[in-house]
Amino acid sequence: MAETRYFAESALLPEGWARDVALVVDDEGWLLEARAGAAAEGAERLAGPVLPGMPNLHSHAFQRAMAGLAERAGPGEDSFWTWRQVMYGFVGRLEPEQVEAIAAQLYVEMLKAGYTAVAEFHYLHHDRDGRAYADPAEMSRRIAAAAAASGIGLTLLPVLYGFGGFGGAPAGEGQRRFLNAPEALLGIVEAAGRGDGGPPGQSRVGLALHSLRAVTPESLRAAVEGVTALDPDAPIHVHIAEQVKEVEDCLAWCGRRPVEWLLEQAAPDRRWCLVHATHMTEAETAALAASGAVAGLCPTTEANLGDGLFPAPAYGAAGGHFGIGSDSHISVSPIEELRWLEYGQRLVRRRRNLLSGGPEAPSVGGWLWREALEGGAQACGRPIGRLAAGLRADLLVLDPDSPLLIGRDGDLLLDALIFSGNRAALRDVMVGGRWVVEDYRHRDEEAIAARFRAALAALDLPATVA
Amino acid sequence: MAETRYFAESALLPEGWARDVALVVDDEGWLLEARAGAAAEGAERLAGPVLPGMPNLHSHAFQRAMAGLAERAGPGEDSFWTWRQVMYGFVGRLEPEQVEAIAAQLYVEMLKAGYTAVAEFHYLHHDRDGRAYADPAEMSRRIAAAAAASGIGLTLLPVLYGFGGFGGAPAGEGQRRFLNAPEALLGIVEAAGRGDGGPPGQSRVGLALHSLRAVTPESLRAAVEGVTALDPDAPIHVHIAEQVKEVEDCLAWCGRRPVEWLLEQAAPDRRWCLVHATHMTEAETAALAASGAVAGLCPTTEANLGDGLFPAPAYGAAGGHFGIGSDSHISVSPIEELRWLEYGQRLVRRRRNLLSGGPEAPSVGGWLWREALEGGAQACGRPIGRLAAGLRADLLVLDPDSPLLIGRDGDLLLDALIFSGNRAALRDVMVGGRWVVEDYRHRDEEAIAARFRAALAALDLPATVA
Repeated sequence: MAETRYFAESALLPEGWARDVALVVDDEGWLLEARAGAAAEGAERLAGPVLPGMPNLHSHAFQRAMAGLAERAGPGEDSFWTWRQVMYGFVGRLEPEQVEAIAAQLYVEMLKAGYTAVAEFHYLHHDRDGRAYADPAEMSRRIAAAAAASGIGLTLLPVLYGFGGFGGAPAGEGQRRFLNAPEALLGIVEAAGRGDGGPPGQSRVGLALHSLRAVTPESLRAAVEGVTALDPDAPIHVHIAEQVKEVEDCLAWCGRRPVEWLLEQAAPDRRWCLVHATHMTEAETAALAASGAVAGLCPTTEANLGDGLFPAPAYGAAGGHFGIGSDSHISVSPIEELRWLEYGQRLVRRRRNLLSGGPEAPSVGGWLWREALEGGAQACGRPIGRLAAGLRADLLVLDPDSPLLIGRDGDLLLDALIFSGNRAALRDVMVGGRWVVEDYRHRDEEAIAARFRAALAALDLPATVA
Repeated sequence: MAETRYFAESALLPEGWARDVALVVDDEGWLLEARAGAAAEGAERLAGPVLPGMPNLHSHAFQRAMAGLAERAGPGEDSFWTWRQVMYGFVGRLEPEQVEAIAAQLYVEMLKAGYTAVAEFHYLHHDRDGRAYADPAEMSRRIAAAAAASGIGLTLLPVLYGFGGFGGAPAGEGQRRFLNAPEALLGIVEAAGRGDGGPPGQSRVGLALHSLRAVTPESLRAAVEGVTALDPDAPIHVHIAEQVKEVEDCLAWCGRRPVEWLLEQAAPDRRWCLVHATHMTEAETAALAASGAVAGLCPTTEANLGDGLFPAPAYGAAGGHFGIGSDSHISVSPIEELRWLEYGQRLVRRRRNLLSGGPEAPSVGGWLWREALEGGAQACGRPIGRLAAGLRADLLVLDPDSPLLIGRDGDLLLDALIFSGNRAALRDVMVGGRWVVEDYRHRDEEAIAARFRAALAALDLPATVA
């Protein structure tokens, strides 16, 4: 079997920063070896320090093409709920080829920004009239094709969306493309899981529940049992407690807050990712941390939508796991997500350096990057997130010529990367053993951008989408 | 006199977005004409839509080189005040040639990010032992040389720094390089104002008061009277009400809050820029808005330092003027400053689209860019901020090939620029009639970066600076 040997002067290994690192990759994209203290001879020398690539645990790909269209004051008070109306207006226009073109462009942007894997929370299943396509998994296949074209690793999460509000309230017109009964959704999961012809280990299928608003206790149970029967380790994601109104409506429905209800009724474990979980009591925060599930944090989207701030210091102190997602893709940058996860806490607490491993592991950047790697990998349910034998070869090469990184070493590189400057000093990106970005350029960025432009032209968006 | 004629298919003029715009520039960098409905013949066609360049109203250039060194948890609680100790440790190492090299690199980064002018709040006057250089304006000249090398427009503000706390408390060791009596400081202002040999209109000299902590009522008055005698329109800047402790100390000293005291005692007008002004009562917010002074907002630094959130909606509703600054240069991006100015408010209010001209001028991006242009130009005290005859030719050309801008027009371009994506789609930058950035590259970026690298190597920074 063919293998490629790389040499890095420094790399972030599971045990910490290491010098003179050999990275050996097989021709299916698996790491055979990641070892410090190696010789450079006979290996291809990487240009700069090496990091594991970051998983993006929450994405709605199509929303990338509406980024910036909803930053306008309406006649009344603007909120998440008025943004959602704009989104419904936009989603009604999309055909499968446009979804594929938008997703491919987005995934190229993700790779260039340092994301080497994405979990796609995929709820746009049906045609513009709300009818299933001849192949009900048509849209899921488009997402898989976009991921394959870009080279990013994929966790595809077909989303169960059945209702318009708590207690099985009927869905609205704007939601018609999203709706499936649990059996139909499980059919899509099964079809998508039959493989996309891509390299083994490069993709995974799980399932998502849109939110407690969009399912009933019965449909939630049917979906979780169904996906578990297909794959006992399949990742399960859910939007939860993003907005105060959602918490109030949940309390009115069942007397429990959303996270509280889910913890009681579904006993989420390491397979689960609770996306947002913004509004929690101290007891919910501690219980979620103890559950082993991952909190899926999306700080730029949560800021853009006016959701609020996740209780990150208490959750981190309780040992809770988190990862990051670019969600609506108003921003596509792990750096901005992590930077503003910390900054949001600084602003309200009027203190600095709140999220770290404490005086023994003081680097905020180091703590944020490592935690988001681990939580993101867990939420994606794929063998990623560390440079170690047996895992996928997903890695980033920092630019040694960047003025931002001069004189920085070890975790100071991560502090510099996350906190200073605005163009990420990420020079090269490897996913599953293949170079997808070299010297800041994606291998196919012109063709993918041309298809994106054609897709946007076909949408014929008005100046505002309402 | 030689002139150059440019043609832009669209440009943001003072009266709004315009089509088929002629921009005529003379050989000293002044706009002779900015007119819609012109013919393209005989003119050089600009690659994309054109915006006025953004003024950066608050900079401490040397701090760029310590960006990312203080993002580490200390043994106790970290705050602005522990950050300041790290900064004092860093500043003690700097020689004049390093200050010039760091400032030049920073100003290149500013230009590439869309800032075409900077107001340098310059308090590092003396040698490492706190003695005046043979030329007391040595460090000021280094800043002017760096600005000239980069091509950015400069407002140089030598800073009066006399004391270590309210009521004339003695300064500490870490502050020794900053200290001057008002007469000595006015000597530096006068010397710097004798010109740097650069193009007329390209630079300006004013004065800053470091803070109410660092001056007494008498020295404040002497400095303001002195600079007014030199130049009755000279800009005057001051740090104010950045930290809660500063408000408490001010109340303990005089029974007034900082902004309240300054409004009563110094009657700031349009010449003044109050930097931060984070912690104000409703009455102070309204009074500052009515004063005609500019609030100098630095959202990324204010987040990094845990300062808090400026009351932007109330201040804007009262008609207050503001501009933006990159201050500590932990970030160097007008886009991140404006984006997070709005996002900070969304996070705490849980609403969207809070800073705009209302339903008649709904674009948040459009409102933020225009307001920051106007306030920034006023605070810099230079003829900039608009594309109009008689002003400096400072402009940005947006990249028409950026996927972020496809199908966007008018203020939607500004919404897309400010809210979507992470690499600013700013292709070309002109300052004072000269192209300083073309196709994303500064004309001299390699040489300036090489000097920056040499300066950092000379500093021999340890892994942490304390």
